[in-house]
Amino acid sequence: MTDTARWIEGVLHGSGAVQRRAIAKAITLLESTRPDHRREADALLNALLPHSGRSLRLGLSGVPGVGKSTFIEALGLYLIERGHRVAVLAVDPSSSVSGGSILGDKTRMEKLSVHERAYIRPSPSGGTLGGVAAKTREAMLVCEAAGYDIVIVETVGVGQSETAVADMTDLFCVLQLPNAGDDLQAIKKGIMELADLVVINKADLDPDAATRAQAQITSALRLLGLHGRPDTAHHDATVWHPRVLQVSALAGEGLAAFWQAVEEYRQLQTANGRLAARRQRQARAWMWERIDSGLREAFAQHPVVRERLPALTDAVLQGREVPSVAARTLLQAFLAPGADTPPAVATPTGAPC
Amino acid sequence: MTDTARWIEGVLHGSGAVQRRAIAKAITLLESTRPDHRREADALLNALLPHSGRSLRLGLSGVPGVGKSTFIEALGLYLIERGHRVAVLAVDPSSSVSGGSILGDKTRMEKLSVHERAYIRPSPSGGTLGGVAAKTREAMLVCEAAGYDIVIVETVGVGQSETAVADMTDLFCVLQLPNAGDDLQAIKKGIMELADLVVINKADLDPDAATRAQAQITSALRLLGLHGRPDTAHHDATVWHPRVLQVSALAGEGLAAFWQAVEEYRQLQTANGRLAARRQRQARAWMWERIDSGLREAFAQHPVVRERLPALTDAVLQGREVPSVAARTLLQAFLAPGADTPPAVATPTGAPC
Repeated sequence: MTDTARWIEGVLHGSGAVQRRAIAKAITLLESTRPDHRREADALLNALLPHSGRSLRLGLSGVPGVGKSTFIEALGLYLIERGHRVAVLAVDPSSSVSGGSILGDKTRMEKLSVHERAYIRPSPSGGTLGGVAAKTREAMLVCEAAGYDIVIVETVGVGQSETAVADMTDLFCVLQLPNAGDDLQAIKKGIMELADLVVINKADLDPDAATRAQAQITSALRLLGLHGRPDTAHHDATVWHPRVLQVSALAGEGLAAFWQAVEEYRQLQTANGRLAARRQRQARAWMWERIDSGLREAFAQHPVVRERLPALTDAVLQGREVPSVAARTLLQAFLAPGADTPPAVATPTGAPC
Repeated sequence: MTDTARWIEGVLHGSGAVQRRAIAKAITLLESTRPDHRREADALLNALLPHSGRSLRLGLSGVPGVGKSTFIEALGLYLIERGHRVAVLAVDPSSSVSGGSILGDKTRMEKLSVHERAYIRPSPSGGTLGGVAAKTREAMLVCEAAGYDIVIVETVGVGQSETAVADMTDLFCVLQLPNAGDDLQAIKKGIMELADLVVINKADLDPDAATRAQAQITSALRLLGLHGRPDTAHHDATVWHPRVLQVSALAGEGLAAFWQAVEEYRQLQTANGRLAARRQRQARAWMWERIDSGLREAFAQHPVVRERLPALTDAVLQGREVPSVAARTLLQAFLAPGADTPPAVATPTGAPC
């Protein structure tokens, strides 16, 4: 039995420590950039795919300090008590820069991380946001195949990683502090548009502020929906309308209401077909994101491109070359080499994705 | 003398009807998709490039009904009176669908369109937003080489075309109606973030509403700037801060103040180096946008991709194939064909851009 076959077996049929080890090994394999590992990883994914897709995928975002870890720990334990198995993954494209992700760090979730019905994995490190997101998506399939029926994907509330997480989950939840000034920022960054649920966390710290924030964000969401989404112009009970809730994760307050809203969302969006449509959109976009990324990487590695790109870029920046003409020059070298240029495509030395 | 050499000569040294005809012919050549035309067009662009870049590029956006044509007509005539030459271009990616662009339609700008110191060209039709934008950028170079020192690029206030226009101009201006409810919409769509100037047009229709709108948008811009752009956290007089103005284009009111703001923007951003930096960013992004687009087009035309993509896409959508594995399968066929597959790259039959 090959190693890969063993991890597949362990993920699908193992239990306890055997399964956990198989999951960890499988995800490590997925995160490897070695071409032979990549082939093994694809075989593993193909074997696990039929057993995946049955979890609820919950995206979670919020700025540092909003209490994400505490919220996930409290929610995770709440769900485990009710018979669920909970996996926590993370998307943090900055982890390669900062030299280590704090997201998904087990020490932040003391009780959840040691629970046998939870599996916590930090963000893959290195590479572009697209690459980090792709590895997390693949890790999600592994967790699902292993029987985790709730997968939480967390990210920090800065930059483009929210979009990536919203694009890989069934429901995207934004955590906010009870600070009224935040709502315009979230609207500005387009995050509110992604949110299916907004949670005012640490509501117990300042109940009045939390209630004000809830009202303001609710009204902002209504205004956004009114013009931006034709289907929510009238209150249509067959589709989900984004909702704002107050929670105090530390005190354990509001978790039941939160989970009830999630369940309601799931039932409604399953019945009206929107959950299935969302997953289809996500799958198609994921495929094309990987194609675009692979094309660009192969392009950048092409010998003629490598040789000519720096000078052409300089010329473009200095206004000595028309950008579109420079693009066509490079594309021509990449796509249709003449006799005087090296072969169009170098033998791939690394995995394109 | 070839036709192309004649158009170059006409654009650079012609005058009156001769130059107008050369500009029109040159732009038509740029918009052609025939490969031999594309080669000629690139030669033309290379010849004109050294004579371009000296205009002020003014982006203009606003929803239908906001009075863009009236504004451009009034502004254009105002500028011509002051010795400028004004070109008006348009980006309307919907024009291929609707069967003809209304943007840049000469009949909407009766006096400007017949003025010998103005040149108006409707949006290129057909293709993606990226393709339409690329052709407009190239047309802009032609107009600049012909001596037009103000180039106005207009677009409708819907979809992603605002970003494309902001990315090809020195200053991006959003036209708004004196309707207080609009500001959240513009913030939501990320348009306000693009705006260097906001114009409340038709201010004379409801002066009170216009003044309220001006105050609200000013305050929204300040809030957006406060957190989002570190450089505007304090009022720094050496950089531009987005400004909101009232104009009544039909009555000709507010145009002088508008143009004074534009001039101030230009002086400030030239002195602090931000205008040059903006153009460099735009040039680099334009080149890469064309490269990505060309790569994707070549990929889509590859025989193995054409053959396998439909079934693989179906499998991905139905959850029978992992999206990233499907992407790698197709990339492998495109980049490194085995003996059993057709050649990696078909001879290009059309221009990749």
